[in-house]
Amino acid sequence: MSTTTVPATMRASVLVEQGVVELQERPVPTPAADEVLVRVASVGVCGSDVHYYKEGRIGDFVVEQPLVLGHEVSGQVVAAGRDVPQERVGERVAIDPQVPCRHCRACKSGRMNLCPNMRFYATPPVDGTFCDYVTAPADMAYPVPDVMSDDAAALLEPFSVGLWAAHKAGTTPGDRVLVAGAGPIGAMVAQAVRARGAADVVVTDFVDSRRERIASFGATRTLHPVDDADEIAALGADAFVDCSGATPAVRSGIAALRPGGAAVLVGLGAEEMPLPVTLIASREITVTGVFRYVDTWPRGIELFTSGAVHLDDMVTARYPLEQVEDALNADSDPLSMKAVVVVNPTTPEGALA
Amino acid sequence: MSTTTVPATMRASVLVEQGVVELQERPVPTPAADEVLVRVASVGVCGSDVHYYKEGRIGDFVVEQPLVLGHEVSGQVVAAGRDVPQERVGERVAIDPQVPCRHCRACKSGRMNLCPNMRFYATPPVDGTFCDYVTAPADMAYPVPDVMSDDAAALLEPFSVGLWAAHKAGTTPGDRVLVAGAGPIGAMVAQAVRARGAADVVVTDFVDSRRERIASFGATRTLHPVDDADEIAALGADAFVDCSGATPAVRSGIAALRPGGAAVLVGLGAEEMPLPVTLIASREITVTGVFRYVDTWPRGIELFTSGAVHLDDMVTARYPLEQVEDALNADSDPLSMKAVVVVNPTTPEGALA
Amino acid sequence: MSTTTVPATMRASVLVEQGVVELQERPVPTPAADEVLVRVASVGVCGSDVHYYKEGRIGDFVVEQPLVLGHEVSGQVVAAGRDVPQERVGERVAIDPQVPCRHCRACKSGRMNLCPNMRFYATPPVDGTFCDYVTAPADMAYPVPDVMSDDAAALLEPFSVGLWAAHKAGTTPGDRVLVAGAGPIGAMVAQAVRARGAADVVVTDFVDSRRERIASFGATRTLHPVDDADEIAALGADAFVDCSGATPAVRSGIAALRPGGAAVLVGLGAEEMPLPVTLIASREITVTGVFRYVDTWPRGIELFTSGAVHLDDMVTARYPLEQVEDALNADSDPLSMKAVVVVNPTTPEGALA
Amino acid sequence: MSTTTVPATMRASVLVEQGVVELQERPVPTPAADEVLVRVASVGVCGSDVHYYKEGRIGDFVVEQPLVLGHEVSGQVVAAGRDVPQERVGERVAIDPQVPCRHCRACKSGRMNLCPNMRFYATPPVDGTFCDYVTAPADMAYPVPDVMSDDAAALLEPFSVGLWAAHKAGTTPGDRVLVAGAGPIGAMVAQAVRARGAADVVVTDFVDSRRERIASFGATRTLHPVDDADEIAALGADAFVDCSGATPAVRSGIAALRPGGAAVLVGLGAEEMPLPVTLIASREITVTGVFRYVDTWPRGIELFTSGAVHLDDMVTARYPLEQVEDALNADSDPLSMKAVVVVNPTTPEGALA
Repeated sequence: MSTTTVPATMRASVLVEQGVVELQERPVPTPAADEVLVRVASVGVCGSDVHYYKEGRIGDFVVEQPLVLGHEVSGQVVAAGRDVPQERVGERVAIDPQVPCRHCRACKSGRMNLCPNMRFYATPPVDGTFCDYVTAPADMAYPVPDVMSDDAAALLEPFSVGLWAAHKAGTTPGDRVLVAGAGPIGAMVAQAVRARGAADVVVTDFVDSRRERIASFGATRTLHPVDDADEIAALGADAFVDCSGATPAVRSGIAALRPGGAAVLVGLGAEEMPLPVTLIASREITVTGVFRYVDTWPRGIELFTSGAVHLDDMVTARYPLEQVEDALNADSDPLSMKAVVVVNPTTPEGALA
Repeated sequence: MSTTTVPATMRASVLVEQGVVELQERPVPTPAADEVLVRVASVGVCGSDVHYYKEGRIGDFVVEQPLVLGHEVSGQVVAAGRDVPQERVGERVAIDPQVPCRHCRACKSGRMNLCPNMRFYATPPVDGTFCDYVTAPADMAYPVPDVMSDDAAALLEPFSVGLWAAHKAGTTPGDRVLVAGAGPIGAMVAQAVRARGAADVVVTDFVDSRRERIASFGATRTLHPVDDADEIAALGADAFVDCSGATPAVRSGIAALRPGGAAVLVGLGAEEMPLPVTLIASREITVTGVFRYVDTWPRGIELFTSGAVHLDDMVTARYPLEQVEDALNADSDPLSMKAVVVVNPTTPEGALA
Repeated sequence: MSTTTVPATMRASVLVEQGVVELQERPVPTPAADEVLVRVASVGVCGSDVHYYKEGRIGDFVVEQPLVLGHEVSGQVVAAGRDVPQERVGERVAIDPQVPCRHCRACKSGRMNLCPNMRFYATPPVDGTFCDYVTAPADMAYPVPDVMSDDAAALLEPFSVGLWAAHKAGTTPGDRVLVAGAGPIGAMVAQAVRARGAADVVVTDFVDSRRERIASFGATRTLHPVDDADEIAALGADAFVDCSGATPAVRSGIAALRPGGAAVLVGLGAEEMPLPVTLIASREITVTGVFRYVDTWPRGIELFTSGAVHLDDMVTARYPLEQVEDALNADSDPLSMKAVVVVNPTTPEGALA
Repeated sequence: MSTTTVPATMRASVLVEQGVVELQERPVPTPAADEVLVRVASVGVCGSDVHYYKEGRIGDFVVEQPLVLGHEVSGQVVAAGRDVPQERVGERVAIDPQVPCRHCRACKSGRMNLCPNMRFYATPPVDGTFCDYVTAPADMAYPVPDVMSDDAAALLEPFSVGLWAAHKAGTTPGDRVLVAGAGPIGAMVAQAVRARGAADVVVTDFVDSRRERIASFGATRTLHPVDDADEIAALGADAFVDCSGATPAVRSGIAALRPGGAAVLVGLGAEEMPLPVTLIASREITVTGVFRYVDTWPRGIELFTSGAVHLDDMVTARYPLEQVEDALNADSDPLSMKAVVVVNPTTPEGALA
């Protein structure tokens, strides 16, 4: 195993119990034969991090022992396992946080995101990336070009959610797409459907400033969920992507589809929702959801490089590793677009101001 | 317009008000330039006919004036419109009951079944086929081979529902498919997914005799919805097709799918159902429904001829046109598989015993 | 039939024999019940027009009687048939030049472009649009917004070729696409794949000025077919679209695909080409071609309006109807991008300078 | 590593030079952590084995050192690597002979068959299965039910070729499919498309007895390539699968497709073939080929168990391991359907007569 100088211990921001985060000293992990060791640069704060922090659980996933949060991550390779080309040391990378088993039928059929044996950063009991060093399968650490900042590289994760949702929606050029929710995921979805050629991207949100802001991130126009209910109902959209998790938004979104349209659920609220099944059948509407993503990092990097997507502008606040708790609280504010924890910037431009 | 001798008037079985059917004398219709006039042979009784008869409405479709029911229909061409090859007179045909506008975007994009301007037999205010003669667009009256009986030709309509549902479910060879409901539509779906290579077709129904009977129509095994709930839950089915319209069946069917599986709603009960949206998203399950069908008659005729599907055996009772009301009442019995009204048989074998 | 004042006769530019075009006076056609009468505004010159003019035939289609050429057409509705909403009179429209039968299995299954009974402008013996007035099915005359010029509206036809080729190539966001040929069709394809999110669009052409020019029309970089052969061979492109019709380009394009990639043939040269079938099989490459298009006008209009495609800039020369022959000769020049015949401009801006 | 008693050495039938096979004593291989050791039961002889034996190469793959041939293989697990559940020892299995890297973009996107790092039995320099013991990734050794014979389990490999070709052809219920070549692969393809619901499966072959025999393996009718050329040309088939490798068959097969039809090349002859590209484009025909398969063993096992496919009947001769050379020579006879080498039968019924 080739390596640069790597210390024995590192800083890690640990959720020790519900609502309590503390900085601890931990051993630096050792990469397995097919892994790389990555010094963390930027980590985006995700709604799921906030949820674990505030609620201590997400559905069946319960935080029962101290857990490092964070999974939207970029960094630099500082060591490479035995089976990995040693020249990868030094590479700036963005990490797809999925560690699928690669042997189940889902993995072998192009649905690795649905692997029942998946390991995933910051999903109990697997530690995440709010720390100095993480390991990752070498093939899941994608090299990024110099034009891509540490923050943008980290935000390839939420953009992957947008890309995958757009893929599931099956939008084609010239389509009209309704997106419910003007938060960071709504912005990622809006940009992703635009990249697929959607000509009219209508985003709904209750908050004026969120509606205004999303014009910079893919929306062609915005509507208020209640005040503009009639206009929404008349859209005849080709696709609807819910990023709100709100039952009324899902129901009105499905009703706003043209016959044969597709609804994709990204934001999850209630376990169950009453859905208009007669409408779904009589219009042959398709309803599905997304869970992680497949093959999105290479596409995200290419799209970013080609100028089709803006990621840096989505960052509304940046924090050092010592202030992860502030970052978690900041990102729970609906007016926050995306908080980033800056750990070990790879360039001077990436440093905290 | 070439023609055989066609009388000026005919018999028509008319739903004059909710629950009251009477035989009337009506003018024989005249085919338009692109239509054929068909002397009706057999007409299958559909659940929708029963519904209009008993309830006077289906959702937004209300019977507000006398209506001829029936839309599963076979017959013989007795006259052909000006633009139709006159040699078609004499052909035995099965009729796709859809009259799409052919000019809207849905029609021009392969989704004619979703045409907003659709005319359809026995859908108010359009009269159906419980009568001696009907007109149909020439291209929707498909010639059937001699080996196909009048009854089987009529049952291509419900088999089309099965084919279309199987198409929407996207089943592939070797798949496991769960079908809820062992009635006539369940039997059509089971046969259709078998024709696509499903290796394990599990049908659920509360009624023992219905479960037993469906072994002849595509099911490889059957389960009781409540007594076998654990086994259903563990199926990990590739696809689920609901032909029951029962909310519990839809919910347990969705939960019985493998990640990435597809649920198709055919039987409609309530307008709304509480659906497990978190499960749908976290397993990337697709939920959709079917409304009519596209391009299924040619396929149904080929499949029947190749021996892949059994239709005649599904007929559990046959009635003359004078007894449409008996046929409607018979088919509402859950132990009835399919009642057929025999109007003008094209062969001696097709006559009422 | 409502109407504005329409004269009894009109000017028509007629190909009277191979290589000879003359302006004749002809009767203005009468729209059928489902048609509109359109006063022609702009007509783009297509390679097929040039081919008929110079060779008198394209494959099996032979010009055996005087023929009006032209099929890339915009205009204004001046009369509407009996079954058409009369308020359409006055609309500025772009015409999809296909008149499918709407009754064959192809038409009813979403493949109207492959209708064996298709009628198409300027395909013998059907007259085209180098004249003052043409009829078209009302649903094939799409209203265009004010922001769209007459020329751009006419060029929706070649852009439809690009859109359909991109659809057949099945490109997805982030893809690398190789396009052979930097002429007008190459430019349309490049813009169309960009609209679908292709991140790297590599266009090849022998002519320096054509390679330079196409940077404004979707290409991210260009290569010389021979000088840069090694670089082309190493592309590993996701898709290849041939707009050159040159056998060497097709062969090197197929070899430049990654395993599982798609090749689409748009430009046709020889009837036959020797293709590397062992490579096609061992890399599971898909080879197909395009013939017309389906459902592309609504998409093209939306994409143009959203700013995703540039059409006016492609016009390199404009001619009055009296100079169709000059336009045909101009457009055979490889340095011409697109010649347009200006017939009856709908706006002052559309007039000839 | 749990294990039953496994000897240190074994018999292996080795191709020592072109045309010369000899039985050698070799060490029994040791399974890696994620592998199983399988005692070989039956091995089908494939055309590629014959090709390596007779020609010493297939395309770029050259036999440069002694090579064990054979890759259609069933057997019994006799040892399991460290990471494999030890209770698998004793299982009867059929082996998917692919060892993909699982880390490249193809592997992670559902195209493992196109993995550039693939290892595959009997492909130089990787040894095959004409021997007593082989190792395989545990997840590629699929358990088979008792109703499946050793021979049938081995023949899941060529049936996988048929299934994958049918998948690529995209056939749907009621389709007409043309298959060129009535050899073993033609028979597998014919059965696979029947399992997908093809209603009319037309197989062509020059040899009378091969045409007769294939009626038991999925063909609904057969035609002579030359004598019945007109009938072939008029088929208007939905799909064409070439299992002949003959250029005239490929050309006439493509010409026999309906517009929008698909051609799949399975049998490979010449590196290049002159193909009718104008026809391909003007009818929007898709031409592709198959290379190995994805996710076919589970499907093949289910289909076999459901009775949809016949494999044992395809075996026309069985040989002991000492007579691999006879088996190779036998299978080069066009009248041979499938020769099997019986190594260590798992049941008395599987023993050589």
